Amino acid sequence: MENQQAIETTVQIITPEEFLEQWLGHRWLTKRLIEIFPEDQLFNHTIGGMRPFADMAKEVLGIAGIGIKALITGDWQFTPELDYRQGRSPIKTKAELLRVWDEVTEDILAYWPQITPEQFHEKVLAFGMYEAPIYNMILYWIDNEIHHRGQGYVYLRSLGIEPPAFWDRS
Amino acid sequence: MENQQAIETTVQIITPEEFLEQWLGHRWLTKRLIEIFPEDQLFNHTIGGMRPFADMAKEVLGIAGIGIKALITGDWQFTPELDYRQGRSPIKTKAELLRVWDEVTEDILAYWPQITPEQFHEKVLAFGMYEAPIYNMILYWIDNEIHHRGQGYVYLRSLGIEPPAFWDRS
Repeated sequence: MENQQAIETTVQIITPEEFLEQWLGHRWLTKRLIEIFPEDQLFNHTIGGMRPFADMAKEVLGIAGIGIKALITGDWQFTPELDYRQGRSPIKTKAELLRVWDEVTEDILAYWPQITPEQFHEKVLAFGMYEAPIYNMILYWIDNEIHHRGQGYVYLRSLGIEPPAFWDRS
Repeated sequence: MENQQAIETTVQIITPEEFLEQWLGHRWLTKRLIEIFPEDQLFNHTIGGMRPFADMAKEVLGIAGIGIKALITGDWQFTPELDYRQGRSPIKTKAELLRVWDEVTEDILAYWPQITPEQFHEKVLAFGMYEAPIYNMILYWIDNEIHHRGQGYVYLRSLGIEPPAFWDRS
């Protein structure tokens, strides 16, 4: 039904390239936030019983890294570095987190062009649990990143640290 | 250039209706957050020198309310209830905030179908300051809402209040 409607329309309101640019811009800003956090507070500072920002960033990283490959390969298995489940990640330093962050960016750049325009309306079952059309799944991943990064902004402010501007995605 | 590419492709990766659904889902969740905040803390609780959540919500509300009309009419003037600039809003209670929230939702439902698919790639100068294609402007508005709502989640947790599930957009 949705697919039918999509095919009948001849003007893209958002192109795959623009959608990718949106994701990459957000990943750039989240990476800036990781860089700005002092190492100790990145892994330990919390408010109201929430997770430290490193744990939120690992979740965002793991979803993106596993997800982008799985959209092409269908393999949703966790790899050790991208396993964001409680206490599983081997990532213990900011440098490691940033290294894997950049590797996932490379994966996104490599896999994204393999998603055909038609596929964006195909349903996938992400991590064996969440079913949605691909366009919606990716929007959810980006939204989840913005959500947790916004929380990271409060953590930084509570530490007296000025976060980067929200509108800056260069 | 972007427009040319958009017209050559015949499959919509996201339809206008899906894009609207995405926005409305987020607005539904943000409204839930406003409802959950105790009235006093909504207007007064802060962390790290940031604004109370009511001020963030007024910004999100004002951008959406003025923005959706302006995309059709070209009029970016503030109206009193949607003026989110520091200290300008006449909204002083949760009930007023929720009432205007619902009015803006009605406006979004009324104006959205008037945006043609072609227009999503037309550039607009929002509030006389920010220039971007409409698709990108609306994404920015939604992103800004998610960003500030994520901050509201931290405020609620710091008050010992359980926020609604992030994935719930019903």
